[in-house]
Amino acid sequence: MKIGILTSGGDCPGLNAVIRGVVLKGTTAYGLEFVGIRDGWRGVVDGDFFPLTRHEVKGLSKVGGTILGTSRTNPYEGVRGGAENISKTLYGHHLDGIIAIGGEGTLAAADRLSHDGINVVGVPKTIDNDLRATDYSFGFDTAVNIATDAMDRLRTTGDSHQRCMIAEVMGRHVGWIALHAGMAAGAHAICIPEVPMSIDEICDLVTRAHDRGRAPLVVVSEGFTLTGMAEAYSAKGLDAFNRPRLGGIGDVLAPELERRTGIETRSTVLGHIQRGGSPSGFDRVLATRLGLHAADAVVDGAWGQMVALRGTDIVRVPFEEALGELNTVPRYRYDEAAALFG
Amino acid sequence: MKIGILTSGGDCPGLNAVIRGVVLKGTTAYGLEFVGIRDGWRGVVDGDFFPLTRHEVKGLSKVGGTILGTSRTNPYEGVRGGAENISKTLYGHHLDGIIAIGGEGTLAAADRLSHDGINVVGVPKTIDNDLRATDYSFGFDTAVNIATDAMDRLRTTGDSHQRCMIAEVMGRHVGWIALHAGMAAGAHAICIPEVPMSIDEICDLVTRAHDRGRAPLVVVSEGFTLTGMAEAYSAKGLDAFNRPRLGGIGDVLAPELERRTGIETRSTVLGHIQRGGSPSGFDRVLATRLGLHAADAVVDGAWGQMVALRGTDIVRVPFEEALGELNTVPRYRYDEAAALFG
Amino acid sequence: MKIGILTSGGDCPGLNAVIRGVVLKGTTAYGLEFVGIRDGWRGVVDGDFFPLTRHEVKGLSKVGGTILGTSRTNPYEGVRGGAENISKTLYGHHLDGIIAIGGEGTLAAADRLSHDGINVVGVPKTIDNDLRATDYSFGFDTAVNIATDAMDRLRTTGDSHQRCMIAEVMGRHVGWIALHAGMAAGAHAICIPEVPMSIDEICDLVTRAHDRGRAPLVVVSEGFTLTGMAEAYSAKGLDAFNRPRLGGIGDVLAPELERRTGIETRSTVLGHIQRGGSPSGFDRVLATRLGLHAADAVVDGAWGQMVALRGTDIVRVPFEEALGELNTVPRYRYDEAAALFG
Amino acid sequence: MKIGILTSGGDCPGLNAVIRGVVLKGTTAYGLEFVGIRDGWRGVVDGDFFPLTRHEVKGLSKVGGTILGTSRTNPYEGVRGGAENISKTLYGHHLDGIIAIGGEGTLAAADRLSHDGINVVGVPKTIDNDLRATDYSFGFDTAVNIATDAMDRLRTTGDSHQRCMIAEVMGRHVGWIALHAGMAAGAHAICIPEVPMSIDEICDLVTRAHDRGRAPLVVVSEGFTLTGMAEAYSAKGLDAFNRPRLGGIGDVLAPELERRTGIETRSTVLGHIQRGGSPSGFDRVLATRLGLHAADAVVDGAWGQMVALRGTDIVRVPFEEALGELNTVPRYRYDEAAALFG
Repeated sequence: MKIGILTSGGDCPGLNAVIRGVVLKGTTAYGLEFVGIRDGWRGVVDGDFFPLTRHEVKGLSKVGGTILGTSRTNPYEGVRGGAENISKTLYGHHLDGIIAIGGEGTLAAADRLSHDGINVVGVPKTIDNDLRATDYSFGFDTAVNIATDAMDRLRTTGDSHQRCMIAEVMGRHVGWIALHAGMAAGAHAICIPEVPMSIDEICDLVTRAHDRGRAPLVVVSEGFTLTGMAEAYSAKGLDAFNRPRLGGIGDVLAPELERRTGIETRSTVLGHIQRGGSPSGFDRVLATRLGLHAADAVVDGAWGQMVALRGTDIVRVPFEEALGELNTVPRYRYDEAAALFG
Repeated sequence: MKIGILTSGGDCPGLNAVIRGVVLKGTTAYGLEFVGIRDGWRGVVDGDFFPLTRHEVKGLSKVGGTILGTSRTNPYEGVRGGAENISKTLYGHHLDGIIAIGGEGTLAAADRLSHDGINVVGVPKTIDNDLRATDYSFGFDTAVNIATDAMDRLRTTGDSHQRCMIAEVMGRHVGWIALHAGMAAGAHAICIPEVPMSIDEICDLVTRAHDRGRAPLVVVSEGFTLTGMAEAYSAKGLDAFNRPRLGGIGDVLAPELERRTGIETRSTVLGHIQRGGSPSGFDRVLATRLGLHAADAVVDGAWGQMVALRGTDIVRVPFEEALGELNTVPRYRYDEAAALFG
Repeated sequence: MKIGILTSGGDCPGLNAVIRGVVLKGTTAYGLEFVGIRDGWRGVVDGDFFPLTRHEVKGLSKVGGTILGTSRTNPYEGVRGGAENISKTLYGHHLDGIIAIGGEGTLAAADRLSHDGINVVGVPKTIDNDLRATDYSFGFDTAVNIATDAMDRLRTTGDSHQRCMIAEVMGRHVGWIALHAGMAAGAHAICIPEVPMSIDEICDLVTRAHDRGRAPLVVVSEGFTLTGMAEAYSAKGLDAFNRPRLGGIGDVLAPELERRTGIETRSTVLGHIQRGGSPSGFDRVLATRLGLHAADAVVDGAWGQMVALRGTDIVRVPFEEALGELNTVPRYRYDEAAALFG
Repeated sequence: MKIGILTSGGDCPGLNAVIRGVVLKGTTAYGLEFVGIRDGWRGVVDGDFFPLTRHEVKGLSKVGGTILGTSRTNPYEGVRGGAENISKTLYGHHLDGIIAIGGEGTLAAADRLSHDGINVVGVPKTIDNDLRATDYSFGFDTAVNIATDAMDRLRTTGDSHQRCMIAEVMGRHVGWIALHAGMAAGAHAICIPEVPMSIDEICDLVTRAHDRGRAPLVVVSEGFTLTGMAEAYSAKGLDAFNRPRLGGIGDVLAPELERRTGIETRSTVLGHIQRGGSPSGFDRVLATRLGLHAADAVVDGAWGQMVALRGTDIVRVPFEEALGELNTVPRYRYDEAAALFG
């Protein structure tokens, strides 16, 4: 059997570890042959493949990024896209199936391709941890560690200057990174997309921490929206307070918090450093195990399914289970953390 | 209600985060009063207590060690030990119960004290991850990260000199640290207490890696015993090969591997650096959550139980569930990793 | 003798290590008495002092920030400011002198106070490394390590997506952090205040790296100004290209580089994470040594001087030597690094 | 011109950065051609060369180890060794000179080869920082950071258990790593080869720290010898106290300190983790600059010289200046640090 592997969507620590796991298990245990597909679905559509042996994957468990490259191409778009064209391309290259490592968009495409008769096994990838059907996805733990370490640093400066420090972390639709990194770093307020808050509520948390003699630390997901802020946002270029829109929501909050509380406030947008670099031990183990089990799934002909973490076990779930609703932070988890705000 | 908190047994990253979680939740949500108990059960027996307010626990989520101190004292030993004496001591200090953070020995003592009528809630602590009834325990993730980082470093030196590098990690009775750190660092052999191996089997793995042009990396749990080595070990001062016993099993293996394979071999015993210092993000979150839920358990009067991780949830389990059999590495998890040896 | 210690200006890893060095040497070797001065010159003016014994400084060598607090107050401003008032305040508290840890502004104030008869010893502090008269200042090495680590992470994402990544680092007037972190991380372009470049020159470096198959990495000091950009900048709210000004210069460059080169480009502003947190080994040693020698200087009555690093030695230099011209990156150092751009 | 590059002796973080610096500068600025020499002088003797272009060195600034391999071969030994044979080998491969990156042994060999008419430029490499004629050598800063981080971890465990912790670090003949890491981590005793101490003196420092309520931290160079210990050492297999010799000097000290002071004591030998892995920012910059200047030296025909760090400049010094006396820790530097012991 000859199998193609692709990585799709945003970069995520652990992608290379998955690839290594697949190839090592597939070649030594099952005698599978692999090709790397360049730049996600773009490479499928273009037939851009290259041989992938254990030589290519050596030492990769600790290496960030993906040796396959990635893109946000949709396999159903473009003149060479669509299930029929892709079937021909795979057939022409003697490929028996694809292992697709990606997030919701990738898994939705994989689901559709499966229904159109193409053999696909999925591996869930989301740095935001926003996929249902897996307890955790690789990359998330690394991102939490990076954000936590950054906030540890911000706190000493907050303390030295008696300032409020705001850290904006990743999380467009779900607040897991903010929740975990905020708990880990001892934040005095955690603002996530799932829990609407007004500027007054945030100011109240900040002021209470300050009154206890602490330098307030606020962590905010990039996707957090202040209550009543949606329309203001939609006016392009203006923020919730009718000023020219700066960078992220952290930059929006900082001057407003400072103005209302009288506490000097600084914002830092962590940005891309959260999704690059060497994965944590947890993510290397999780990514490697997902790769090993994806090779098993291929040999078992478990097409149309993805591998996932449940408790401490790797299981298989149909694509559709991972789709639809996002894995949002449940209210009780937020309240649990809020008990620490004081 | 007035509650005492103690930490017992070996140091473990996250102990302070548990203490902070208990105190913040207990004081702000429930109005509980806390005292710190010095040096584990030693402080219970001696009535060595001090007031523990939110002031004492501020900033502790990232701080390694335990502000309470720890010891290996058994509460049933000594002239002032035993349930009756302890009951009197607690009564004299108006303590309504104890939160005991510790490993198997501590939880066994807590179980016995519970049966003797003393109010105890437990928090599982084991850096080796050897307790059943919790998916993971705090400290383990930090230890895996430290061991992984150390092995990343050893590998570059192995590659430069074309040497075999041995890393001895913690794990007296179970091999979880070796298993996870070995998978994360791409080890060519993982030697754990649960899976007996002969020197020939290890040499075979080392030689095969070397023949593929790799500098072999071997990770070995401190509790690993070579097949047929037990008696040799028992002869005090001699190792399995009748030489004066050096440091750990890593030091025993190194010269023997070198002699048999002809590959220059060096051993490093990571030792105490694995159990100190600032906890990882994962461990801070887990430890904090266990602390928050331990405060809940106290208020619910859930005496005789410990809090534990199941999947992504914190649950309560009776002490006895955590006792008896250790949480060993199951054979299928070892075989899963062994697929990577090549 | 009774000496006050103050820290002034922006936060910097190593401040606490200096304080610890002063107090340990001063108390044990010389029997000096110390008071901490709260929030820089603000505390001098307000007479806001507290006793500082070896107990207060224990364990501080690794702790980021400053236990004394800091501010940007000028001692010659305000109704209680000025040499005469300060003299009275110091006399009233029986202080024989001040150790002032700070940057150019602080040392200039210290110089003026010295000429006005107040006993001051200085310790140079600048995270940007912009002070003459010291080879390196503490905090700089830590900032370079943080920036380097961040760029290592950005590179893997650049490689995965074949993107150009821009990292904006600290350096308002001098480019040392960009120069060192850029060399360390293998940047393809380094843009510093000392070396004017046009957007075309940067595009050329980026395109050349891209043509060699690399994901271009550009590091830019916050104080870098594009050639011909100065006036545009001065028009408040507009950037060099007449658009509403976004965050930092990195955010200005990114869309322009992308537009001109056709290479997808992302910018990250590292910001405050570069100046907080635990200092590197180098900075702890440097800061501690400066503190030890500041205690010596006090005992020697070397008022009006600051301690500084020359080669591997700590020396004393008059304040005025540190003032005036900044320690800019000399052209030959820039050209040296530019040889790596390819 | 065609130049061979070799790395010799023990592994050291920054070797790859030197190689990259040489090749990038040499090829792009001067049009030099390079070959890699495998495994140090072994490859010279055997004529084991391979082409080294900028392609081979890309991304290497952050990579630990050496892509050239290393060995401890002496070029004057063996049937194919000696200046005459080597001259013929170089001539046969059209090599015009060698850049030799190594420690004292390598530089001594390079010096002798130079006098025998072979073109050699040297780059000093010593993780112990034991070479005169360079202020610092690359790898040392990384080793200090690793040792400091390890001791930060050991301290929390020492504090939790009220134990004395001993850390044994590298340094066979000089104590620089122990001195710097000990200052950085706040050690209560620093034991280095240059400063003989008796067991009583160490016990005294440990006891004094303990009496102040601290968990004593002792850092000891691997080459430290207790006063009056030399003969005991020479008796093979016995330590200074006539017991079977354990691992390193740290393991020798631990039981003796515990026995004499009554303070529970644990020892950790950091070993090989200090010399592997990714270099610090400082070491990457230093190594890269040494590489750039080695290329310059080749073009200038500065044979028989090595590049070195003086203050913040890279200079050239004749080989003999680096040889002979080691760069030991001067007494005043030790006394400076000892002021912190308390």
